[in-house]
Amino acid sequence: MQRIETANQQALDIMLKADPVLIDVIPAVQAIPALGEGKKILHAGPPIEWHRMCGPMQGAVAGIAVFEGWADDLDDAMQRAANGDYEFHPNHHFDAVGPMTGMTTRSQPLMVVENRTHGNRAYCAINEGLGKVMRFGGNDESVLAKLAWLRDVLGPLMGKALRSGDGVALKNLVARGLTMGDEMHQRNVACSGLLLRALSPSLARASDDTAVLAEALAFMGGNDQFFLNVAMACGKSMMDPVRNIDHCCVVTAMSRNGTDFGIRVSGTGDQWFTAPVEMPEGLYFPGFTEADANPDMGDSTIVETIGLGGFAMGAAPAVAGFVGAGAASDAALFTRSMREITCGENPEWTIPAMDYVGVPTGIDIRRVVETGLVPTINTGIAHREPGIGQVGAGVVKAPLRCFTDALRAFAVREGVA
Amino acid sequence: MQRIETANQQALDIMLKADPVLIDVIPAVQAIPALGEGKKILHAGPPIEWHRMCGPMQGAVAGIAVFEGWADDLDDAMQRAANGDYEFHPNHHFDAVGPMTGMTTRSQPLMVVENRTHGNRAYCAINEGLGKVMRFGGNDESVLAKLAWLRDVLGPLMGKALRSGDGVALKNLVARGLTMGDEMHQRNVACSGLLLRALSPSLARASDDTAVLAEALAFMGGNDQFFLNVAMACGKSMMDPVRNIDHCCVVTAMSRNGTDFGIRVSGTGDQWFTAPVEMPEGLYFPGFTEADANPDMGDSTIVETIGLGGFAMGAAPAVAGFVGAGAASDAALFTRSMREITCGENPEWTIPAMDYVGVPTGIDIRRVVETGLVPTINTGIAHREPGIGQVGAGVVKAPLRCFTDALRAFAVREGVA
Repeated sequence: MQRIETANQQALDIMLKADPVLIDVIPAVQAIPALGEGKKILHAGPPIEWHRMCGPMQGAVAGIAVFEGWADDLDDAMQRAANGDYEFHPNHHFDAVGPMTGMTTRSQPLMVVENRTHGNRAYCAINEGLGKVMRFGGNDESVLAKLAWLRDVLGPLMGKALRSGDGVALKNLVARGLTMGDEMHQRNVACSGLLLRALSPSLARASDDTAVLAEALAFMGGNDQFFLNVAMACGKSMMDPVRNIDHCCVVTAMSRNGTDFGIRVSGTGDQWFTAPVEMPEGLYFPGFTEADANPDMGDSTIVETIGLGGFAMGAAPAVAGFVGAGAASDAALFTRSMREITCGENPEWTIPAMDYVGVPTGIDIRRVVETGLVPTINTGIAHREPGIGQVGAGVVKAPLRCFTDALRAFAVREGVA
Repeated sequence: MQRIETANQQALDIMLKADPVLIDVIPAVQAIPALGEGKKILHAGPPIEWHRMCGPMQGAVAGIAVFEGWADDLDDAMQRAANGDYEFHPNHHFDAVGPMTGMTTRSQPLMVVENRTHGNRAYCAINEGLGKVMRFGGNDESVLAKLAWLRDVLGPLMGKALRSGDGVALKNLVARGLTMGDEMHQRNVACSGLLLRALSPSLARASDDTAVLAEALAFMGGNDQFFLNVAMACGKSMMDPVRNIDHCCVVTAMSRNGTDFGIRVSGTGDQWFTAPVEMPEGLYFPGFTEADANPDMGDSTIVETIGLGGFAMGAAPAVAGFVGAGAASDAALFTRSMREITCGENPEWTIPAMDYVGVPTGIDIRRVVETGLVPTINTGIAHREPGIGQVGAGVVKAPLRCFTDALRAFAVREGVA
């Protein structure tokens, strides 16, 4: 129907005209004042109660509660969580996103991405690096010490550096990353380097202690996934202005809490359409197998929502092997296939090896249901028990049921059901 | 003949086992003590006298003579050069390489790459950045001021930073760059970022002035070709141990002085086989055409000698358009074609999009002459007049005559002519 096509093109237009800029790093409670009231813990994915949370998310909740001083230790935190001491909300309900478990609480430093075209802001915590980390359910002292360093040292330094200039424009940076083998979900080595390159002079000027500066540069430079969280805030800032367009059936968010996969669609407002998350198919780190794996988790699927990640696989042949998606030379097939379920392409985010085709952009739920092609997502895999961490990486499919349910609700609204 | 095959495989083996590490930046006269005697100016390419030098090389000579205090001004320097006041030698005769005009004189800072497998060292000046620069024949005050800053600020800082650690291992860094769209000749954005990432913590620790540090980081981070000169020293350090192997017909150096193209072959020792340089086919910056272009120039072809640049085009689809080499999706054809003239592939330098084929390695002059396929070189293009600078980038072919002459001389040595 014409009114739907028009609305979807409007959504695509809003996405393509977005101008996301990384402008600051500030304490979460400044970014999201509601975090100052009560013991709020924001998590990845659609809404979920404590008893339905998966192992790594419960582990992360326990860890972050100790970090915030809301529990004496992990056991105490688990008990308090079960007793209802903490309020749980999705990041997505507060302009935020978080990878994997996606913990966001008041004292964490959040990166601020402003969409200068629309004036809205989106937030994401700083990537913790690899190894045992909270986003994969890690919660021991080393994990909390790292979070404290991010809060007390790196966050303030990055914030000072960013505030001293005009921010880091992300649209061009992502465009360059696509010519350098990144797809911005499981491969961010190029963009992480480009960001460090852009920020390092102002980090130096913002610093009064070269030893601390060296530590910050080594941390940022030692983490190939540093940019993931920036890409996520970028995606959130681009998609939020697409919400609530009448007659529009473009997906505005895809997200998982480790138990449920959820999507939101522009024309159906804030409603989540959920289905049980699937298990990624992928490759496991030595010593781990699928038996150890938690199902799919995290807000990071926001990058697929804007045409990156699995949708941009053709830009990143090296990631295909890492996530177990087949031959590197077949990476372009994923991009071509995802083009069948989107409204258009992004002419500013192109893939050289595919003769500069734009990444598939704007997921149309009608096309997903018609073709049966669900979004392909590149993802990390967490251990299913609390406190252990990442065990692999893989490809996972968004559950078709989210899209059929959403399409049914959309059809009712449109009066065509 | 078996003895030739054996010798060529030995050459390939030496190349593949090389372990090039960027270990220091030191004044040229320390690296190459002979530069302290007389007014020696090292240049790119095979030997050449003043009156046969092309415009940009004469311009660079005049500039570097003023820089060293060997002339009052550019006109004076030109006169003195014509009068025989300066000694000219190829960089290649002193373990060194230089891009385009390739000026190397006593007080410039040189980067030191040590091949840890063989213990030899190779040297290259620091890349000056884009715009008006000496390597493209620039010689005005801004060019000399930049060289002075490299000598007085960046060189010493990089040297101190490198000496504080174990150096930067280049084999793995180049391998990563190949998965990130670099071919290390006309595209070095990935490796430049990876190098900055690796060095920035020690640069910070080596610095006692954060404003100076910020300037250094901005300079390195603002130059996508910063790594080119490192790749060149890397190549020189890998190829020098391949020289003088009896019965070996692998190319050990390809180089151009803007007038002549020259190659050296392992089994024929230090002899240069030369032919007039060709004109690159390429794309010109706005306002310039082929009429402005100087023919092919520089020692940078050492990177093709080790399997990078035009040989690794398949890794860098984005460079194909930049150098006017056709569709990005055809980049792999160059790599496949160059495989026909090499002894083997480098299993540690692979191209993801080509399902991890190794870059073609070890140019066999017999295969070049048999197939008529000459090495494809990605190159920058200088204005043919002194003092102007870069006007474009393109692809150029090594002249076949260098290879036929070399093969004839080789055959005489082998007693098969």
